[in-house]
Amino acid sequence: MTRPILFLTDYGLEGEYVGLCHAVIARFAPDARVIDVTHTVPRHGIRAGAIALASAARYGPDGAVWLAVVDPGVGTARRGVLLEASRGWLVGPDNGLLWPAEEPLGGIGRAFELRQDLVPWRVSRTFHGRDIFAPAAALLSAGSIAEDLGTEIEPSTLARIDLPGPAVRVDALVAEVLDVDRFGNLRLAATADDLDAAGLAGRADLGVRVGERTARLRRGETFADVPNGEYVLLVDSSGRLAIARNAEDAGDGLAAAVGDAVVVSGEE
Amino acid sequence: MTRPILFLTDYGLEGEYVGLCHAVIARFAPDARVIDVTHTVPRHGIRAGAIALASAARYGPDGAVWLAVVDPGVGTARRGVLLEASRGWLVGPDNGLLWPAEEPLGGIGRAFELRQDLVPWRVSRTFHGRDIFAPAAALLSAGSIAEDLGTEIEPSTLARIDLPGPAVRVDALVAEVLDVDRFGNLRLAATADDLDAAGLAGRADLGVRVGERTARLRRGETFADVPNGEYVLLVDSSGRLAIARNAEDAGDGLAAAVGDAVVVSGEE
Amino acid sequence: MTRPILFLTDYGLEGEYVGLCHAVIARFAPDARVIDVTHTVPRHGIRAGAIALASAARYGPDGAVWLAVVDPGVGTARRGVLLEASRGWLVGPDNGLLWPAEEPLGGIGRAFELRQDLVPWRVSRTFHGRDIFAPAAALLSAGSIAEDLGTEIEPSTLARIDLPGPAVRVDALVAEVLDVDRFGNLRLAATADDLDAAGLAGRADLGVRVGERTARLRRGETFADVPNGEYVLLVDSSGRLAIARNAEDAGDGLAAAVGDAVVVSGEE
Repeated sequence: MTRPILFLTDYGLEGEYVGLCHAVIARFAPDARVIDVTHTVPRHGIRAGAIALASAARYGPDGAVWLAVVDPGVGTARRGVLLEASRGWLVGPDNGLLWPAEEPLGGIGRAFELRQDLVPWRVSRTFHGRDIFAPAAALLSAGSIAEDLGTEIEPSTLARIDLPGPAVRVDALVAEVLDVDRFGNLRLAATADDLDAAGLAGRADLGVRVGERTARLRRGETFADVPNGEYVLLVDSSGRLAIARNAEDAGDGLAAAVGDAVVVSGEE
Repeated sequence: MTRPILFLTDYGLEGEYVGLCHAVIARFAPDARVIDVTHTVPRHGIRAGAIALASAARYGPDGAVWLAVVDPGVGTARRGVLLEASRGWLVGPDNGLLWPAEEPLGGIGRAFELRQDLVPWRVSRTFHGRDIFAPAAALLSAGSIAEDLGTEIEPSTLARIDLPGPAVRVDALVAEVLDVDRFGNLRLAATADDLDAAGLAGRADLGVRVGERTARLRRGETFADVPNGEYVLLVDSSGRLAIARNAEDAGDGLAAAVGDAVVVSGEE
Repeated sequence: MTRPILFLTDYGLEGEYVGLCHAVIARFAPDARVIDVTHTVPRHGIRAGAIALASAARYGPDGAVWLAVVDPGVGTARRGVLLEASRGWLVGPDNGLLWPAEEPLGGIGRAFELRQDLVPWRVSRTFHGRDIFAPAAALLSAGSIAEDLGTEIEPSTLARIDLPGPAVRVDALVAEVLDVDRFGNLRLAATADDLDAAGLAGRADLGVRVGERTARLRRGETFADVPNGEYVLLVDSSGRLAIARNAEDAGDGLAAAVGDAVVVSGEE
């Protein structure tokens, strides 16, 4: 049985980078199912990629190979790694991208530094997705054992990154915008627990400020819990706080973009 | 044997909404083939999604599961449904989106309201694609029977929508632009029969007006039937009238966008 | 066993053209694996499509069907063809698109003009991807023999195109920009051999000019071989010369776009 491969990068949707990785996977694992999680991680966005990967890892099949490439250091001394977890495997650069997915995948086991000679062609210095990571994921999917793909290393030597957390004040929560989706919903780097810590958990009527723009904000559970055009603070499908605007675009309305600081307060 | 799943949404290509649904399908139906029909339906565009779904249903494999999600009412009282048709199944929200595909799929049979507890995690109020519709489609693909996925309901209670039709005048046809593709071709909400009803069927030379812009328009069957840069009225691959401009962009040339009214007349 | 299908077009990512072809393939070849190489070839960009196809052909699986559609002459007298190569098959319009992939696929064998009656519905004049090319690729994948799909023709009658080459001067190389990727890297229509021919192969410090803009350019092998913000000339993953800017966007910095002429010279 082949393992499914779940694939995430910052390669973008234009051009053939993603397609070439798929072609290489088909070459080394003709029967593997490959699932594109996303390829629109902001370019070189290791932190954003790590968050997307960890979120997706909660929902994917057991035993999968998670192939993730956001790799500004491609071709330098940074290692390529293969990480074993209880519920699957992770393949990608050793720059912190993979680490946050370990917890939703049930905790880390062994770690391996990938070999660089998995393909019969000359390995490029700029496209390890095609030449190292996709081949490793495909070979693992098709039945290779980790020992054949790399050398075991000490998990404590793996790179880590800090994920952004909110600032909790009395009667206010300041959180970064992690993502603005197609519908203009703002995903925040904060959870309902953070709202509780700021003493705002029970409040139905709140206020929001992004830069110079302010608006009334109501608590709700879905978009249609507020009238059309009004702002609602809800727990979104990733378990994070999000600000939406029923039938309209909250990102446009608040002129908010990824990385902006959003202030949710008790003052309407 | 697993049924193929054909997947259509307004989730867009950026971000991981589509990818998370694919991951969930892989979890519940490890062997199912999943085909992305399109994910660029205009956001909340139930009517546009219904048209795209019905068009695609003519060409897909028999016995497939058509998973369609354009769902501005997610998390409200609107039902999730599973519809049986002669040539396949439809899964999605009960807001009219699915209905027009029944005819190309050979007519409706039974209808079911979907259960909301198909997944082992807490169902989100904002992402039923991941938590209800994709799981239902996957389980059906993998062999579940409809009775296990929901409760039978009366098909006459299903929501319907009106699809746009043209206005037929003497010597003129007024039709809405349904779509502008990458090549700038304008797909109209009208057919060759409507042109006939307007008394324009036999005319080789016509005129077109969109807002203030006008142009000569010739009848043809393909782009190259007119010289480069000229406008041609043809029956496109979906069976609808379309206006194209050989080797150029008709949408740019006529400053036309989705929803605009196009007047085709006998005056050049 | 079904052959995998590798699929490349200029249909773009918006709308359902690509999805309809996938749906048709699933109908005629329920078990075929389909890999999207790219669908963002510039519209009507036969030359760009031919280059992308030939590059990808080096990495895909043996025995595959390469389905490529960039087809400004759809519905005219241009033929649809099926070409046999040592390492696979090519399907698409006879306009030069397929030809450059023959060499990476191990050389041409027989050629066939495709039948136009492979589907049970009326063949459109504007969408041969759905009605002729995808069905032919699917039937071939599922086991049909070439003789059932078309009529053998003389390979010497196939259309050819010229691919762009660089101008080599004393101490300067002038090459066209073939592609600008999401990271702003400029892929040039030139190789390291061309740099050698211009007498620049051993130079660590070079200069680049695009229109009015100039910059220092260093030789390197990967992005991080130069400090952040500086320009590096490297051999990219396709084997061509490329200009990148470490951690920044070379295309923005040099205001360079596809088709622009880039001058690499020995003067810093």
